[in-house]
Amino acid sequence: MIVREKQNWLRLLFVWRGSILKDILPRLVFLFLFSVLVVYFRGKLLDYDFSFNPVPLTFIGIALAIFLGFRNNASYERFWEARKLWGSLLNTTRSLTRQAITMSGLSANSPQVSLFVHLLIAFTYTLKHQLRQTEANSDLTRLLPTSLATSIQKGQYKPIRILKELGIWIQQRKQEGHIDSVTETAFDYNLNKLSEIVGGCERIANTPIPFPYTLLLHRTVYAYCYLLPFGLVDSSGWMTPLFVVLTGYAFMGLDAVVSEIEEPFGLEPNDLALNGMSKMIESTLLEMIDLEAPFLPPPHNSFFID
Amino acid sequence: MIVREKQNWLRLLFVWRGSILKDILPRLVFLFLFSVLVVYFRGKLLDYDFSFNPVPLTFIGIALAIFLGFRNNASYERFWEARKLWGSLLNTTRSLTRQAITMSGLSANSPQVSLFVHLLIAFTYTLKHQLRQTEANSDLTRLLPTSLATSIQKGQYKPIRILKELGIWIQQRKQEGHIDSVTETAFDYNLNKLSEIVGGCERIANTPIPFPYTLLLHRTVYAYCYLLPFGLVDSSGWMTPLFVVLTGYAFMGLDAVVSEIEEPFGLEPNDLALNGMSKMIESTLLEMIDLEAPFLPPPHNSFFID
Amino acid sequence: MIVREKQNWLRLLFVWRGSILKDILPRLVFLFLFSVLVVYFRGKLLDYDFSFNPVPLTFIGIALAIFLGFRNNASYERFWEARKLWGSLLNTTRSLTRQAITMSGLSANSPQVSLFVHLLIAFTYTLKHQLRQTEANSDLTRLLPTSLATSIQKGQYKPIRILKELGIWIQQRKQEGHIDSVTETAFDYNLNKLSEIVGGCERIANTPIPFPYTLLLHRTVYAYCYLLPFGLVDSSGWMTPLFVVLTGYAFMGLDAVVSEIEEPFGLEPNDLALNGMSKMIESTLLEMIDLEAPFLPPPHNSFFID
Amino acid sequence: MIVREKQNWLRLLFVWRGSILKDILPRLVFLFLFSVLVVYFRGKLLDYDFSFNPVPLTFIGIALAIFLGFRNNASYERFWEARKLWGSLLNTTRSLTRQAITMSGLSANSPQVSLFVHLLIAFTYTLKHQLRQTEANSDLTRLLPTSLATSIQKGQYKPIRILKELGIWIQQRKQEGHIDSVTETAFDYNLNKLSEIVGGCERIANTPIPFPYTLLLHRTVYAYCYLLPFGLVDSSGWMTPLFVVLTGYAFMGLDAVVSEIEEPFGLEPNDLALNGMSKMIESTLLEMIDLEAPFLPPPHNSFFID
Amino acid sequence: MIVREKQNWLRLLFVWRGSILKDILPRLVFLFLFSVLVVYFRGKLLDYDFSFNPVPLTFIGIALAIFLGFRNNASYERFWEARKLWGSLLNTTRSLTRQAITMSGLSANSPQVSLFVHLLIAFTYTLKHQLRQTEANSDLTRLLPTSLATSIQKGQYKPIRILKELGIWIQQRKQEGHIDSVTETAFDYNLNKLSEIVGGCERIANTPIPFPYTLLLHRTVYAYCYLLPFGLVDSSGWMTPLFVVLTGYAFMGLDAVVSEIEEPFGLEPNDLALNGMSKMIESTLLEMIDLEAPFLPPPHNSFFID
Repeated sequence: MIVREKQNWLRLLFVWRGSILKDILPRLVFLFLFSVLVVYFRGKLLDYDFSFNPVPLTFIGIALAIFLGFRNNASYERFWEARKLWGSLLNTTRSLTRQAITMSGLSANSPQVSLFVHLLIAFTYTLKHQLRQTEANSDLTRLLPTSLATSIQKGQYKPIRILKELGIWIQQRKQEGHIDSVTETAFDYNLNKLSEIVGGCERIANTPIPFPYTLLLHRTVYAYCYLLPFGLVDSSGWMTPLFVVLTGYAFMGLDAVVSEIEEPFGLEPNDLALNGMSKMIESTLLEMIDLEAPFLPPPHNSFFID
Repeated sequence: MIVREKQNWLRLLFVWRGSILKDILPRLVFLFLFSVLVVYFRGKLLDYDFSFNPVPLTFIGIALAIFLGFRNNASYERFWEARKLWGSLLNTTRSLTRQAITMSGLSANSPQVSLFVHLLIAFTYTLKHQLRQTEANSDLTRLLPTSLATSIQKGQYKPIRILKELGIWIQQRKQEGHIDSVTETAFDYNLNKLSEIVGGCERIANTPIPFPYTLLLHRTVYAYCYLLPFGLVDSSGWMTPLFVVLTGYAFMGLDAVVSEIEEPFGLEPNDLALNGMSKMIESTLLEMIDLEAPFLPPPHNSFFID
Repeated sequence: MIVREKQNWLRLLFVWRGSILKDILPRLVFLFLFSVLVVYFRGKLLDYDFSFNPVPLTFIGIALAIFLGFRNNASYERFWEARKLWGSLLNTTRSLTRQAITMSGLSANSPQVSLFVHLLIAFTYTLKHQLRQTEANSDLTRLLPTSLATSIQKGQYKPIRILKELGIWIQQRKQEGHIDSVTETAFDYNLNKLSEIVGGCERIANTPIPFPYTLLLHRTVYAYCYLLPFGLVDSSGWMTPLFVVLTGYAFMGLDAVVSEIEEPFGLEPNDLALNGMSKMIESTLLEMIDLEAPFLPPPHNSFFID
Repeated sequence: MIVREKQNWLRLLFVWRGSILKDILPRLVFLFLFSVLVVYFRGKLLDYDFSFNPVPLTFIGIALAIFLGFRNNASYERFWEARKLWGSLLNTTRSLTRQAITMSGLSANSPQVSLFVHLLIAFTYTLKHQLRQTEANSDLTRLLPTSLATSIQKGQYKPIRILKELGIWIQQRKQEGHIDSVTETAFDYNLNKLSEIVGGCERIANTPIPFPYTLLLHRTVYAYCYLLPFGLVDSSGWMTPLFVVLTGYAFMGLDAVVSEIEEPFGLEPNDLALNGMSKMIESTLLEMIDLEAPFLPPPHNSFFID
Repeated sequence: MIVREKQNWLRLLFVWRGSILKDILPRLVFLFLFSVLVVYFRGKLLDYDFSFNPVPLTFIGIALAIFLGFRNNASYERFWEARKLWGSLLNTTRSLTRQAITMSGLSANSPQVSLFVHLLIAFTYTLKHQLRQTEANSDLTRLLPTSLATSIQKGQYKPIRILKELGIWIQQRKQEGHIDSVTETAFDYNLNKLSEIVGGCERIANTPIPFPYTLLLHRTVYAYCYLLPFGLVDSSGWMTPLFVVLTGYAFMGLDAVVSEIEEPFGLEPNDLALNGMSKMIESTLLEMIDLEAPFLPPPHNSFFID
């Protein structure tokens, strides 16, 4: 999520920033040294020849391909579903803001509409804090009247509390006679969607890919990489460390990327930019009621970096 | 679903808890001893050489890759769809609770709203009991007035009975003049969703992956693993048992994980944490009407362990 | 769909009931004898050596893997979509029954509600009969008043006729002043869903996977299996028939399972249990209006066997 | 889509009708002769040996597997989505007809309802003509009053014009006081769906799979097939032409099927049976208002042949 | 997206226009020359033999197949989802136009309806400009009254501003008494959809496939292609450059196509034809209110070329 502009194919080969290579370099160096030792000692260690024909490795390779393919797809789907949920959060809060402006019988710059929009922004931030297990307090007090912020702060499921407040807000418009039950239902339809977004994010955060998959893949990858030098030493000689490190780069690299992608709400480099997206939602909702965001929104198409 | 915190890549290689290795260890030991015997006796048994070229194994390997890939994907999709249905159950019961609080014309702490919320909680528990074929009685009597509990207990399709009671509850609000048919329809929309959740769970529980797939895969995996030592003994000698056990770990391990994942409503280690999710739904719904759950809800992001 | 309880991994290797082996055994025996002949005659037939290097088989193997993987996935998706449509039929008829009980202004045991529910049950049975091209008459006369049964029996698209009757039933409630157009629309929403279910089932029944796929796969599988003994005889000798039969079991077995799964509304062992599901819908709808099904509904989680 | 009844596995090997073999036979014959020449001249042509080790072919084979697998899946998804859109067209026109009969305040045999149904049928036929770029005029004049047919005929987007007429029809019912805005909205919901069906079909017709994919796959397939004889001649001798043709049958056959499936609205043998489906929609809608189709509708489950 | 008509299989082999070959030709020429050097110097360079057995390449090949397969699928899904969003834009603007004509109580040629339709067209163009980061001003002033164009021009999120204007337009119809809240909700339902379309496009534009995937794939492809000549030189001699270039064409070609497809809103040859689609939406909406588009709309089924 760091480098955006299209790159020349040649320069792309030597990019360092944003590469997974940074993370796995020590492991690759170690694997390289190990391979060098295997080549150096071949046939010499205690008069026993540990090298072997590479055929058995292709059998483990089949299993590896299935594991890697599956775990990669499942993780990317989690990542992309999480992104879709936050995209849907953007769409739904925009729709609710539009409804508050044009269907509630109130003018766009009335304090009630402003409260409604700030509740939506607070909803976004509390969801972010819940998913990252950080403290929502400073955002709540920044966005909401103190008494409301305090009451929400007490709850265990803060976004759901705010959802209830949004429902009460709509109920009040109805009691004032500004809206009838048809319009109330149109609002309610979007509140249902917000409820689904919270539940969807909780589902991804609370239910990881079953742990045995991670273990099976992780162990098979490392067993494979460390058996590789023994299988290649006879046919490849001093080229062995090169091949082993290349293969190790591909497999360990994928294993490492997948571990980041798998939990998309974390704080690792390739996780979702929840901070950037929260600020973007704040900025677009405030623009709709002609207020300005308290920070400079980044230029389009390049701001989703946490 | 047991180990949550990110682990060091090195320590991950030696985790025992939550590993499928526990379950398949006896089979791997047996396969190991079998391979040792094959290597020891090669060429000696009745003057007949049972070893062979490993090429034919790659042909069976193609079939194996297709079977494993398919059954793994289909099983994981069942698991994840089941999880989505329970996530949807959470969202929909929350939405219905919000509707009961803000749209029914009753206050959040009225006994009727409390009954409605307890019906939703009872719905959740009876669905869990139906899927696991356990007895719903104790949860029904804990949550509902005795007469209602008794009447629901008699039915074969208990969640559907509760759905009908929820419909009657809404009908009563309409007869009291608190809601009109528009609001009734907004409630009804979410009751339809609950109906879809029950049916979706029943579908997964009642229609397994066609049995011949399980047999084809299971038999091909074991035939493959037990032919492997004959194919490798000539080229790999005393390294054979190591390769066979590694390959066996990968294939038998996946076969075993998939068998658990496939029926996500069971009680095996990697099945869905229906107990944890039911308690979570109880706790979040009660919080919405300012009641406390009769048990300590676990901290976020780490409680879905049955 | 026959064996449900979890089986010991060892016993699973020797299950006969529900195995596809029953269906393809004669073909495997024939393939076995053919392989024996190839091994016996190698190099002897007219002084010409028909054996060859197995490498070319791996090239055909790539094509085979793509065909099998694709056709298997496409067939299973058809099977599972058909199952989802019938699951949706269950959910929607339950929702319509709940609506008839709680939203039509009639009591649950009124004759009109009973007619409505019996129309839904008749809808289910006529859909089953249409998909299996069997005679709906006996079920229609069992469930509906004679005049109605006769009029529906005459139509070519019977489920659509019943859908129209359901629409007329709702129209009558409106004309009686029991429901307004909002409630009528809530009913109508679920009738739209029934219309989608009929169309979805017709789509799967009327549009098979394009025939050339079936031919391409079927022919490649058999060509591959019958070339295999020539490719293996040099390297594997008398082990050849064993490998050939194992590979044949895997590929021919998958080809045979897929042919059954592909047309999920048929009567083969692995097709959908439309009888069981129809009875289950009848039983759950009747329970909702406190009537008993005319047959003993099977215990949960084990009844979807036709 | 031509052969429907289940066939004996043996007879299936020799089916000619509906096979793709018809289309690619000349190419296979040419490939066969080319292979024969390669075998005949090996080592002799200008004293230079053009044969080579088949290993490099496996490297191209990896790319081929990815291309074929991808393009096949993407094409089949286009085919199946197109089929789903036409299935949805059937469902939605049936639902609109049911709504016109039971919710418009008009009787099923009134001229207005008949006009409405004929507009739906004309919608179906104009969509078919737009997708196949054929002339809609004869169907329009057959189905609609002359003035209406003429006015629609003038438009560039005919189905959208008819959609507008359907909207005007509903508006007239409202102006007559037969329906209120709730019922109008229920109709409108299904008109939105028709709009989505038109747009979905236009999307598939207007946006093919990006052309470079087709080129990459097509060229790799043919390069692969024509290199194959050089790679196999050393190890397989006079068996080479057999293997080459078999592999060519599989790869060229898939390439040819995929080209047909990819554009599902065309007129090739495996494209969608838009004529059959249009007639089926006409027949089922007319049955709902007790009119007869002007042609004999084919028996169920066997009529989708164009 | 350039060549539409079905081509003869033979001519398809020699198409140049629209081929990715144009883009990667220099890289292939370089790879070819590199391979020639490898073959020429084999065994001679400093008395050290750099050639090696090709087996290790198959191990890297497994990783390559997983990477290429995944990135290709993920990119194509992005491309196709983006296309679906623009298809949905077409459907939804058509539906809103139909609603404005038939449900707003205004006649199709009233200035208000014309304003509404022009707002929809302006919505389409501003979305295009936002996604391509181009200047919306000329289209805004062409389509909208100056004051409105100026006010929208000032906003950062222009399509959302127009969405708000559409909401205000509907509100005005309600205040005039032309529509009730039911019809307002029917409009609002489609405005929600437009909001989802904007958010969906922003999601695809702002969240690329995680960058490490691109790097891992790109580097593995080039490492693989440049190691290939060393692995093939021993067995293939002077045929090596041919094989290397063929394999390089397949892998580098796919890598290059995928890079274009991945960002579907760009201006490269295989990106979406946003200009063509915007004009098509303008033309079809104007036709619905009997106005003519200010440009000649291209003939059907061949106009989506930017």
